[in-house]
Amino acid sequence: MAYRVLVWGLGAMGSGIAKNIMEKEDLRLVGAVERNTEMFDKDVGIAIGDKEYGCKVYSDIELAIEKTEPDIAIIATNSFVKEVLPKIKIVAKHHVNIITIAEEMAYPFHSHPEESEIINSIAVKNGVSILGTGINPGFVLDLLIVTLTGACLNVERIEARRVNDLSPFGKTVMETQGVGTTPEEFEEGLKKGTIVGHIGFQQSIRMIADALGWELTKIEEIREPIISNTERKTPVVHVKPGMVAGCRHIGRGYMGDKKVIELVHPQQIHPEVENVETGDYIDIYGDPDIHMSIKPEIPGGKGTIAVATNMIPHVVEADPGLLTMLDLPVPSALFKEIKG
Amino acid sequence: MAYRVLVWGLGAMGSGIAKNIMEKEDLRLVGAVERNTEMFDKDVGIAIGDKEYGCKVYSDIELAIEKTEPDIAIIATNSFVKEVLPKIKIVAKHHVNIITIAEEMAYPFHSHPEESEIINSIAVKNGVSILGTGINPGFVLDLLIVTLTGACLNVERIEARRVNDLSPFGKTVMETQGVGTTPEEFEEGLKKGTIVGHIGFQQSIRMIADALGWELTKIEEIREPIISNTERKTPVVHVKPGMVAGCRHIGRGYMGDKKVIELVHPQQIHPEVENVETGDYIDIYGDPDIHMSIKPEIPGGKGTIAVATNMIPHVVEADPGLLTMLDLPVPSALFKEIKG
Repeated sequence: MAYRVLVWGLGAMGSGIAKNIMEKEDLRLVGAVERNTEMFDKDVGIAIGDKEYGCKVYSDIELAIEKTEPDIAIIATNSFVKEVLPKIKIVAKHHVNIITIAEEMAYPFHSHPEESEIINSIAVKNGVSILGTGINPGFVLDLLIVTLTGACLNVERIEARRVNDLSPFGKTVMETQGVGTTPEEFEEGLKKGTIVGHIGFQQSIRMIADALGWELTKIEEIREPIISNTERKTPVVHVKPGMVAGCRHIGRGYMGDKKVIELVHPQQIHPEVENVETGDYIDIYGDPDIHMSIKPEIPGGKGTIAVATNMIPHVVEADPGLLTMLDLPVPSALFKEIKG
Repeated sequence: MAYRVLVWGLGAMGSGIAKNIMEKEDLRLVGAVERNTEMFDKDVGIAIGDKEYGCKVYSDIELAIEKTEPDIAIIATNSFVKEVLPKIKIVAKHHVNIITIAEEMAYPFHSHPEESEIINSIAVKNGVSILGTGINPGFVLDLLIVTLTGACLNVERIEARRVNDLSPFGKTVMETQGVGTTPEEFEEGLKKGTIVGHIGFQQSIRMIADALGWELTKIEEIREPIISNTERKTPVVHVKPGMVAGCRHIGRGYMGDKKVIELVHPQQIHPEVENVETGDYIDIYGDPDIHMSIKPEIPGGKGTIAVATNMIPHVVEADPGLLTMLDLPVPSALFKEIKG
């Protein structure tokens, strides 16, 4: 019996998740929910520019749940706990399990203790499991780090870097990372909150620290402009020398004076023109040291779509509650259906 | 409340596990069982050449359980299912959870279906969880591979290599890997079964395949001598040019004609003299490809001790049954106790 899945939100991530679910033997896409009126009542496959699939796009989540009777809903609409909380409430109330790719939901206990408590009680009361996940936070700079510490007798400190290429992304990403701004505009954007860098360091750092039993005394985040020495172009942005090619976002966790976790995430367009090699790098200093690299980096879009999809069976089968990637078995690539 | 742990077997691995448990805030070593008569009734710390710890070595497992009331026993005495089965029976009968580092127990369902069924029913009947784990099988060439596939939309095939250095090991390891033999003696040792190579490919390959929903039609194992071009020496063995410096063990899983999993584990002394770089390498071919390396490799001894220790909380808290690393949350380095 395949798990019945409803996808809420058909943006880039939600569409990718819907398409991926369609291809999986153990999953069945039963519908989607979108606020884009042009998609209403269309076949989900057609709505996302793929082939007809046989289930439709709803405008209303409660109607969608009633009609499609899903085991789980994937919420791919927001990044922040406060935005996604009302959506979680509605879905959970109907006894439907939830995976959300809202970055802050990957480990919300420290950044949002009250909301976490509310979500956990709703989950328990309605007998559903709720997980926040994605490639990062949720996998590269937290779950993978924690997993590798499992082979250590002791860990003193952790450094990790995720160096990626923003070139394929659209305007919104360029704006939130400050790509194409002058250094002055970048500083201003940070102050105004229009340039945000990466969302998830608070979550990843706390997830690692809690897994290791580390009581952090301070977390700091630094966002620096990556000033380009060269000309860099994508279809949506043009960076001249001296302008900003991206945002180097750094998150640090301290125990007293000691920096025990440092996560670095420089995101820019065309890193290769200045000989920056993209990749995921994890350095664990302890007994033994572990130095891991993945080159190139696990791609962000596909990675998030994959992790969210591949966790579905674990979340449906889990005991009720607000869960994290630390509570569940590891994901594995679900088998691609062989079409008859 | 710390978990109460009994260690059965104080060889190199069992001693290391006992010492590691002593240092962990969340664990309490309550005793050990050894057949070496010289250790009987000694303090476990003293018996393993460390400082006094405050619990003792028993000669009899049932007496040890009765006196120490452990939550879990770590069985570090054997490699094979048939050897460890009677030990598992005794411990489980007394309602004590079990972790064993017996390689074949990491995923025994295909190689030992009957024994697996017996062990699972004993576990369920007595309300205990039983896990086989270690660095390999149990972590590098299976759990880590599966975890990385979790970030893939689809996987076509997997290649992985664990290239390590046997130089620190003793006589037994040299003998079972054929180090210091002539090529003729190596072939003879393979035939006689005195040279075995790595134990665990059957388990790792099945674990990966089951996680991915792959129905394998064939598994093959190949053991080749690593013929040395140079002179290589350790305190226990001397290899002249033309002699065997180690065993290159290869495991392959097929679906029909297609080789979908290839695990390669060349184990030799002093690989550096012939410019072989040790490391753990995982290549996943799919969508996306993932190329991971850990250099140098996660050390085998420390890794096994760490993984076995770090899984203790997960095993004690798990639902009853015969479990694998695929069923449980990932391990994380347990916090080292700060001594007053």
